[in-house]
Amino acid sequence: MNGTSGSQRKSIVALCGGVGGAKLALGLDRVAAENSDISIVANVGDDFRWLGLYISPDIDTILYTLSGNADEKKGWGRKDETWSFMEALQEIRSDAWFNLGDKDLALHVERSSRMAAGASLSETTNDLRAAFKVRSRIIPVSDDSIRTYLRSKNTWLPFQEYFVHQKCEPSVSEIAYRGAELARLHDDVRHLLIDETPDAVVICPSNPMLSIEPMLAIPELRQALRETKAPVVGVSPIISREAVKGPTAKLFTEFGIEPSAQACAYRYRDFIDAFVIDLNDEVELPGVEIRKERILMTTNEDKQRVATCVLDFAASMAKRKT
Amino acid sequence: MNGTSGSQRKSIVALCGGVGGAKLALGLDRVAAENSDISIVANVGDDFRWLGLYISPDIDTILYTLSGNADEKKGWGRKDETWSFMEALQEIRSDAWFNLGDKDLALHVERSSRMAAGASLSETTNDLRAAFKVRSRIIPVSDDSIRTYLRSKNTWLPFQEYFVHQKCEPSVSEIAYRGAELARLHDDVRHLLIDETPDAVVICPSNPMLSIEPMLAIPELRQALRETKAPVVGVSPIISREAVKGPTAKLFTEFGIEPSAQACAYRYRDFIDAFVIDLNDEVELPGVEIRKERILMTTNEDKQRVATCVLDFAASMAKRKT
Repeated sequence: MNGTSGSQRKSIVALCGGVGGAKLALGLDRVAAENSDISIVANVGDDFRWLGLYISPDIDTILYTLSGNADEKKGWGRKDETWSFMEALQEIRSDAWFNLGDKDLALHVERSSRMAAGASLSETTNDLRAAFKVRSRIIPVSDDSIRTYLRSKNTWLPFQEYFVHQKCEPSVSEIAYRGAELARLHDDVRHLLIDETPDAVVICPSNPMLSIEPMLAIPELRQALRETKAPVVGVSPIISREAVKGPTAKLFTEFGIEPSAQACAYRYRDFIDAFVIDLNDEVELPGVEIRKERILMTTNEDKQRVATCVLDFAASMAKRKT
Repeated sequence: MNGTSGSQRKSIVALCGGVGGAKLALGLDRVAAENSDISIVANVGDDFRWLGLYISPDIDTILYTLSGNADEKKGWGRKDETWSFMEALQEIRSDAWFNLGDKDLALHVERSSRMAAGASLSETTNDLRAAFKVRSRIIPVSDDSIRTYLRSKNTWLPFQEYFVHQKCEPSVSEIAYRGAELARLHDDVRHLLIDETPDAVVICPSNPMLSIEPMLAIPELRQALRETKAPVVGVSPIISREAVKGPTAKLFTEFGIEPSAQACAYRYRDFIDAFVIDLNDEVELPGVEIRKERILMTTNEDKQRVATCVLDFAASMAKRKT
């Protein structure tokens, strides 16, 4: 296979949030980056500034996961991390509730420095991706600001306040993706989805409400997913009514929705062609093909197996869609 | 002694650069802060931005020294420091020549964050001083930008480029304190020196050219030192023709000046009333009283002994000056 021959290369676009999604992104990168251009479109709804630093949790997780630097045991941040900065910060600042590891900080400081000098989030992300020797491209869904807020009783909580500071404990009655309606879809994502037809568009198994829908709230993206001729394949973030990680199931329940693969697929019904669910789950949705696979991704072999399943599924869909 | 009785309290103003000066500042803090208001006026000529962070090396050194956090063995930075940030940064950035320890970083990030939110350097410094539980006030000589540049052959080097990156190796033919001429002396320093008469004004044993003269280059400060009725007592940074630390002797030599206590005192001749030198040194300068003391400050006892000597000297001068 000739990796330099453009006509032979496949194109894969994956919408991805944080930890759960990044596992599949890693699988895609490992099984397909040799002969495919992989573009991981990252959620920016969790982004925020703290201590003047621009922190982009989902992009960070994708960068660390794909470069082999993620702390898989802890589930966030970098492996072999140290915490001297936080210890020193807590001595001079009372409200230091967001944990920044010493190594993790290098990424935030470097990114903030580049952005302060005028670089966009996407330019910076692409430079950092190269610095971390990640083959797959990582594209923030937009260079405009999208900020996820969650309403609990009468208070709108910024995402990190809810997710990290209050540990997802408040019950949520409403979610808003501030800025999304006016945010411009990143040019390269538009180009990939609208002007080109990728071989596969993958919706990674991230929390629909907190990771995928902040992106879908950009009207142009949802429209592009509906219109693309590429097969759009989702992977369920819920297995047997439980989220693998995070507050997905809790949020669904608070919204009066039974957490299930069915409920996830339903949220994407206007644009997915196919949905991958766990062996014991069932989904029935008109116009959406279902494939069953062991989708709990623990080992790297799991991640590559699920990625292979998704790509095979997309290839078979592509034949039927055209 | 009643520390709350304002009328009884003495007022001490000390002009201070980095490590050498901070040793005496520590001595002053330890022997006099109980019954004196100590104001340490800090050089900002070394200040710079790196990675978007505002770094103020002399203020940092004073903060760390007076709070007991300085790495006295290494001579800069914080004790018990770790270096994970730098290791991670070097993986994604090639020109990471300025070392920031993980704990040290907490100070820079916190300061930069406060300044980005609109606080001045002096407000930030005062808050940080309180957070570090330092009793003596630390006042940046100006909230305006003063930046020391050194000319080597045909190139003007910013201070940190010369001092840290090139390890003081280039030979220097000219020094400029950019911004000093138009910089406003900090209001509190003006007030202390001009409206009040401190019990002592101390010129700490810092590098004259790199630490004290960037401050003196503010015309109002030099004028205030000439006019104040307070006794102005300097301490030599040079012992037996050698600087205790740093490039003082090398710079003097490059300017064709023999490095000596005499040469240091001479640079301050228009405003000092008294000068403290080492036991084996000699200074003769009209109108300047000389006191000899063992001024090499290694232990905390040394620092307190030299501080006591300076304050006694100032007290005896004050009687004669009024």
